[in-house]
Amino acid sequence: MDKILSGKVVSLNLIGKLKKKILKLKCEGVIPAAAFIRIGSHRDDMAYQNSILRTCNDVGVTTVLHELSDHTTSEELIELITKLNEDETIHGIMIFRPLPEEMDEEMINNTISPDKDVEGMNPINQAKVFAGNYQGFAPCTAAAVMEILKYYNISLKGKHAVILGRSMVVGKPLSMMLLKEDETVTLCHSKTEHIDEMARTADVLVAAMGRPNAVGADYIKPGAIVIDVGINVDQSGKIHGDVNFDEVVDLASRITPVPGGVGSVTTAILIKNIVKAARNFKCNKESAIACLLI
Amino acid sequence: MDKILSGKVVSLNLIGKLKKKILKLKCEGVIPAAAFIRIGSHRDDMAYQNSILRTCNDVGVTTVLHELSDHTTSEELIELITKLNEDETIHGIMIFRPLPEEMDEEMINNTISPDKDVEGMNPINQAKVFAGNYQGFAPCTAAAVMEILKYYNISLKGKHAVILGRSMVVGKPLSMMLLKEDETVTLCHSKTEHIDEMARTADVLVAAMGRPNAVGADYIKPGAIVIDVGINVDQSGKIHGDVNFDEVVDLASRITPVPGGVGSVTTAILIKNIVKAARNFKCNKESAIACLLI
Repeated sequence: MDKILSGKVVSLNLIGKLKKKILKLKCEGVIPAAAFIRIGSHRDDMAYQNSILRTCNDVGVTTVLHELSDHTTSEELIELITKLNEDETIHGIMIFRPLPEEMDEEMINNTISPDKDVEGMNPINQAKVFAGNYQGFAPCTAAAVMEILKYYNISLKGKHAVILGRSMVVGKPLSMMLLKEDETVTLCHSKTEHIDEMARTADVLVAAMGRPNAVGADYIKPGAIVIDVGINVDQSGKIHGDVNFDEVVDLASRITPVPGGVGSVTTAILIKNIVKAARNFKCNKESAIACLLI
Repeated sequence: MDKILSGKVVSLNLIGKLKKKILKLKCEGVIPAAAFIRIGSHRDDMAYQNSILRTCNDVGVTTVLHELSDHTTSEELIELITKLNEDETIHGIMIFRPLPEEMDEEMINNTISPDKDVEGMNPINQAKVFAGNYQGFAPCTAAAVMEILKYYNISLKGKHAVILGRSMVVGKPLSMMLLKEDETVTLCHSKTEHIDEMARTADVLVAAMGRPNAVGADYIKPGAIVIDVGINVDQSGKIHGDVNFDEVVDLASRITPVPGGVGSVTTAILIKNIVKAARNFKCNKESAIACLLI
């Protein structure tokens, strides 16, 4: 049994499967394609963006990049999204975040067609995650955690998962996805009293608070599985997880590293969602044609 | 401090406030009105239905009852809902459940206009509850629990709430509503191992499993607050909660009875939602007119 749950291994495996699916789709006449939208030009964003675009191109997903100025208004962004919703050659839409503060993020998320919402930000997809319905799109990071558990055959039906962090992109959706797998789920957050004690009751502990090295040995029940979602970049550019790996590694039965853990799987999940969107598009088109022929 | 958290008292208080709001709305030219749809004629339904209609009429909410035959199809029901969505004299739509098994419940819930969805069944409203956004409608029973906690000034920021039951009408929405109030929340269910142990970690224990008297003394941490959502009718017609009240009452610091607890507040919450829908309708209409005048 591997103690270290390698996100790189999971990602490589998933990418391998996706390449085959993409080839099949292309043979059937559909070229999976996604539009990426970036507003402004923060350097962090650029590195992340370039890595995603490169991976997409490597596996055969066509990418279209829309680079908008810092001064773009919500209305202009919504106009672009509306065009992309209607564009039959585009199957997925991704927006690099955070958006400028003055933008109306709720309205922007509502505008993205649920069928192209490969980041799981539209309320229709959020409601599906909430209801335990896997037909929509879940946020990529939450789905990446599930992919790692699945790859390593970690089934924890009836066991106790404790999630530290209650965001709409990790904590909350992940709680619903683990619940769907019959785990008992606790959501902790910055206001939780005795958070270390709560964490010590976990069979699976997921750290997603965004606080570097915050989870130490006192958070871990011996033998627990520890999943570190944190990606915190320090002033020297070094990446730290939310978990103090060195302090925790001997106590945990299995643990994801940072880097090379959850973050490594997120892009593969995004591509998985784009491929799913492209396949759904193909199926919907075929049934529409079938309807016309009847 | 009252040990018994009386739903009747909470309901009376809420109804009193709603009467004033309804009067105000009427003075402003809006008569709050709701359509109720019943399919078939189960006797349990009828008693519940008559109680709701009577309370609506008592407080001044106009009711329109649509009684459909057992043989109604999903399409026919959807046609009726669509008409009601467009009817400007109707602000809320409620369907008595469970629906006949052969009906497409998902599509029916999707059809109810989110603005008239006073039971919180449409995915747009579910997504709002998931996101901790109070602008939509939450399911009435989950909201009834919150109303009881609010009335009795029970603030448990940072404390641990354990919910037994993960349904889309109680457990899941309530978990998100308690989280919004900064509680730490655990969702347990039929597959949870050592559920009694989990329950004993709760500062607030909510029983919503639908199993009569399932929660005994071994589920309770001394001093815990116990909220019983269960309404189980036995063969003699007597109502039992999910909590074994006699066994638990001395251990709990506060407890809701059954009957006279959460169930007593649910109808008042439904009326609260109808009034909210009517007021939203009025505001939307006024801003539409204002737009036309600009």
